Amino acid sequence: MTLRVGIVGISGFGGGEALRLVAAHPSFELVYAAGEGSAGSLLMDRFPGVPPRLAGLVIEKWDPATLPQLDLLFASLPTGRSAEALARIPQEVKIVDIGGDHRYAEGWAYGLADVWPDRIAGHTRIANPGCFPAAVLTTLAPLLANRLIDPGNIIIDAKTGISGAGRGGADSRFGYAESNENLVPYGLLQHVHMPEMAKTIERLSGGSAAGLVFTPHLVPMTRGVLVTIYCRGGATTEQCMDAARRFYAGRAFVRVTDKPPQTKWATGSNLSFVSYAADPERNLVIAMGVVDNLGKGAAGQAVQNANLICGLPETAGLEGLPVWP
Amino acid sequence: MTLRVGIVGISGFGGGEALRLVAAHPSFELVYAAGEGSAGSLLMDRFPGVPPRLAGLVIEKWDPATLPQLDLLFASLPTGRSAEALARIPQEVKIVDIGGDHRYAEGWAYGLADVWPDRIAGHTRIANPGCFPAAVLTTLAPLLANRLIDPGNIIIDAKTGISGAGRGGADSRFGYAESNENLVPYGLLQHVHMPEMAKTIERLSGGSAAGLVFTPHLVPMTRGVLVTIYCRGGATTEQCMDAARRFYAGRAFVRVTDKPPQTKWATGSNLSFVSYAADPERNLVIAMGVVDNLGKGAAGQAVQNANLICGLPETAGLEGLPVWP
Amino acid sequence: MTLRVGIVGISGFGGGEALRLVAAHPSFELVYAAGEGSAGSLLMDRFPGVPPRLAGLVIEKWDPATLPQLDLLFASLPTGRSAEALARIPQEVKIVDIGGDHRYAEGWAYGLADVWPDRIAGHTRIANPGCFPAAVLTTLAPLLANRLIDPGNIIIDAKTGISGAGRGGADSRFGYAESNENLVPYGLLQHVHMPEMAKTIERLSGGSAAGLVFTPHLVPMTRGVLVTIYCRGGATTEQCMDAARRFYAGRAFVRVTDKPPQTKWATGSNLSFVSYAADPERNLVIAMGVVDNLGKGAAGQAVQNANLICGLPETAGLEGLPVWP
Amino acid sequence: MTLRVGIVGISGFGGGEALRLVAAHPSFELVYAAGEGSAGSLLMDRFPGVPPRLAGLVIEKWDPATLPQLDLLFASLPTGRSAEALARIPQEVKIVDIGGDHRYAEGWAYGLADVWPDRIAGHTRIANPGCFPAAVLTTLAPLLANRLIDPGNIIIDAKTGISGAGRGGADSRFGYAESNENLVPYGLLQHVHMPEMAKTIERLSGGSAAGLVFTPHLVPMTRGVLVTIYCRGGATTEQCMDAARRFYAGRAFVRVTDKPPQTKWATGSNLSFVSYAADPERNLVIAMGVVDNLGKGAAGQAVQNANLICGLPETAGLEGLPVWP
Repeated sequence: MTLRVGIVGISGFGGGEALRLVAAHPSFELVYAAGEGSAGSLLMDRFPGVPPRLAGLVIEKWDPATLPQLDLLFASLPTGRSAEALARIPQEVKIVDIGGDHRYAEGWAYGLADVWPDRIAGHTRIANPGCFPAAVLTTLAPLLANRLIDPGNIIIDAKTGISGAGRGGADSRFGYAESNENLVPYGLLQHVHMPEMAKTIERLSGGSAAGLVFTPHLVPMTRGVLVTIYCRGGATTEQCMDAARRFYAGRAFVRVTDKPPQTKWATGSNLSFVSYAADPERNLVIAMGVVDNLGKGAAGQAVQNANLICGLPETAGLEGLPVWP
Repeated sequence: MTLRVGIVGISGFGGGEALRLVAAHPSFELVYAAGEGSAGSLLMDRFPGVPPRLAGLVIEKWDPATLPQLDLLFASLPTGRSAEALARIPQEVKIVDIGGDHRYAEGWAYGLADVWPDRIAGHTRIANPGCFPAAVLTTLAPLLANRLIDPGNIIIDAKTGISGAGRGGADSRFGYAESNENLVPYGLLQHVHMPEMAKTIERLSGGSAAGLVFTPHLVPMTRGVLVTIYCRGGATTEQCMDAARRFYAGRAFVRVTDKPPQTKWATGSNLSFVSYAADPERNLVIAMGVVDNLGKGAAGQAVQNANLICGLPETAGLEGLPVWP
Repeated sequence: MTLRVGIVGISGFGGGEALRLVAAHPSFELVYAAGEGSAGSLLMDRFPGVPPRLAGLVIEKWDPATLPQLDLLFASLPTGRSAEALARIPQEVKIVDIGGDHRYAEGWAYGLADVWPDRIAGHTRIANPGCFPAAVLTTLAPLLANRLIDPGNIIIDAKTGISGAGRGGADSRFGYAESNENLVPYGLLQHVHMPEMAKTIERLSGGSAAGLVFTPHLVPMTRGVLVTIYCRGGATTEQCMDAARRFYAGRAFVRVTDKPPQTKWATGSNLSFVSYAADPERNLVIAMGVVDNLGKGAAGQAVQNANLICGLPETAGLEGLPVWP
Repeated sequence: MTLRVGIVGISGFGGGEALRLVAAHPSFELVYAAGEGSAGSLLMDRFPGVPPRLAGLVIEKWDPATLPQLDLLFASLPTGRSAEALARIPQEVKIVDIGGDHRYAEGWAYGLADVWPDRIAGHTRIANPGCFPAAVLTTLAPLLANRLIDPGNIIIDAKTGISGAGRGGADSRFGYAESNENLVPYGLLQHVHMPEMAKTIERLSGGSAAGLVFTPHLVPMTRGVLVTIYCRGGATTEQCMDAARRFYAGRAFVRVTDKPPQTKWATGSNLSFVSYAADPERNLVIAMGVVDNLGKGAAGQAVQNANLICGLPETAGLEGLPVWP
């Protein structure tokens, strides 16, 4: 079975990674690509490495009213741009929205694929988690589900490579010379990812996430997210590790490791690595997780969700090993 | 058909990239891995992202006398270490040597896969080109074959990411703080890659490469090779571009581009990008080419050569798009 | 007045930075340099940019028994190597130990120069704080001194450029390709810097620091430390900022900023930048600070301490602006 | 003597580096700063590390008609913007133009300070060389002056850190994720720096530079220029090195080294490092040089030129060692 697939927002980093994964997928055929800054170009002019069969695809100007026939659409539009545009897509076209507009919106399933795949299969509208929530929630889910930590007392210190900040356009904050060799905290005490994290923490634990603290930082590298999460609970390291191994037993993309995870372990893949270090005497659990912000943090999880809702093997097109070094 | 494949030198960067490509190959099954510094470890301890089916593979201490049954072996050993070790492998085991010991050695075919695939198929012993030669020879072959440049007057200014220098061990020259934010020329007027480049230039052109100049530089990035080659000849830009398009027509991995190539276009793939800019009035042709030093510059071309000698589709396992950004 | 100055451990990054600062200091004359891996070399062979007057200085093999006449010695030896070696230096030679062996040792003053300069002047033996403590303690001192936070409930999430991990020698963990584009937590739940941080927190607050949590991370850049510190207290942002401005009023090297600090603001200088963001409703204070790990985190603070104990202007030789971009 | 100094173009990288050097200069007092994107801001808001005495300086909107009284002005405006603006500055204000509009213009001396300081002293209008010419001409001058190479057959392969490309504004070509881990040739067969290089080569050699070839490349680092120059001549390595040592004897900022120079040797300083490797049998001389593109390549040489025309010691304010690592 080959599905006719489209990507809108092909000029952004999430759209570009979706292109790479869709092109390699055994059951997907890319038949439509649309983007803002590149409308009218050939796909190969924007992405010189595309195979010949895709080289001549013209990047369209996004117009939901004039879509070709599609089975599946990946949307990676800037915040605020998805809601109106995607509302007009016919129901028979399955949509995975990589952008943030539909997370926890009515009619859309929150696509936390490694944690609740059963809540995803059967839907046609999937809101892909943000890159930080992908890492945070995958890391915390086993502890929350097993009541090993207090959901109301979670401090998340998050770090992301700069592709996680989006393709800035006229934003010299992300210019090379300004960003290189520099580490910057941002979004203190409020960040667009907090609502979906808080809601999910509450759903997984049955408790309140009112005390959630989240501090992201920009790191001078292209890809990678690491979250270092400070939790309260009396569990031991082994109890946490054990809960995670059981929680993710049989799940293809989450690896529980003894050693603290490095972002490079996940780069270029749809993997997450999680680890835990606890000090029961001080009621402290440190939970750590890494993802590739464009992999599990965006396009990788989007393809995984698409596999789930299209009845394909969950790992289809996502089996590539991380790119190392 | 599934071939039983081994990799020796799994701890090095070339061996690690071979692992990534072999694991994704539809016709290869990795059954043997050997390495110096990691003998006795589980593959998953060295490569946390390997799939479950490979996680428990033990990395053996390399001993050509006690190999399991293999169809194909990739060797990525330090310079000087291959010759003696591989001599003892039975002829029925096909070998692709990613290291340099067998280039232009008797009984070994030089595996310049995009240029002379016909000289590779049918062999069982392939000497994979070095990373710089892979880029240089792919870039120059159309000009040499079409007599558009003088083979005796070629100046190559080469740049490589630091994984191209090998995994240094106790070498603080490649320590992060010493290498980061730094550009360094090395190997002036002599470099281990010169003989294979000179021989191949002579073979392709029928002329002498006695005046070959080659200056490599270390660049503060992980992957990527770019060669800027200054040649003499009266051709126009379009004649060079045209010769390259015809030379590589139908070849899956070489892309001829109008714009100067960027190393990132090739990163994570087996692609090469080549371009040319000529000034006939000054008898000057600038030829440029990029590869991923671990892709076309090492493991990617090794897998491509393996496909050729094993009778598999040339692109098997190598169709992944470059990883961008 | 010109002081005769020596540096031991000139081959390490701390020693190299001390060289740069000593060479620029109006009252210091470098007359002695010693190092392990470079003994016997000329200073200019190790540091090609030294001025002619220092170019011919021979790097000695460290032998405390055969020192020339010195007024001041900077020691930057590996952990465990200082204690025995420095014990034999005559009392009339002032010593600033950049390494960790003498922090809070009897007879040595802890050189937290921006916080308690009065406890430093008058001493002859100064233990320079570690890079992380330099950032952490500078950031927390105003909050602790003003009882704005609970000293027993401090979580420090720390990030450092890779020169902060030391010059590794045969340590491929810090090889370029392994470290580049990678973020790694390490030293969880125990780190060599914790005792000096805990002791100082207790000294500044009068309370217990038993609950101190500290998690360092390696960041792919050469220089820079950022600490994001999660504290408990009911203060407002403005109360914290105000306390810091008053605490550091007239102190030359600490800048209190409204915006979250970036490591690059401090690079190449002896500056610290601190900022605070509080949420009184949740009893949360986030305190942030940046230093250059080789500046305020090592050699910069060492020179500042030397100025204090030698009766020189505190800012002598340390007035250089950060290097930007 | 303290000179009243102004900097226009303070928002760019050249202007920012000029600020750092002027602030540290014993005879300069910064009394005026102007910039496009930052007009109206306080200097400390744009440059958090400025000392208190400069913190309150307001960045003016550039208007040559309303300048305060100045002795010296550094101009670092975008190409094309200097000529008209600076024409209106009174003659008693000395000007060093870091931008390119006045190179070899009538009434302006070309400020190649290490090569012909005598042609600079006594002037009041100095056109600072471009970053690539600074490196190229410093490297070639001894060979040209001593007729060791043919000025008509020079091939320059140049590499620059990304701050050398200027502060891009709305230019995503220099966005972090696009530029990081990437190497790109640009400006082939024509580059804005070629005329000044050709003219100077001709002036130094008395011959024609008609065959000049120059290929710049963007390198993923912030600062640093390295030029690898392929020349024709029958000289030996030692003849070239010797010519350079004699040519630069007594010059404070040029270091002739046996080993190939690394960009990091110059970073943060006004130094150049040059080296040569020749193969007389093949009539080949490879000349190499490094500078910091913002140091000798821009603001460093500008301050050096200012010292020369203001009758100050040539090294005033420029004695800082390179920042390493």
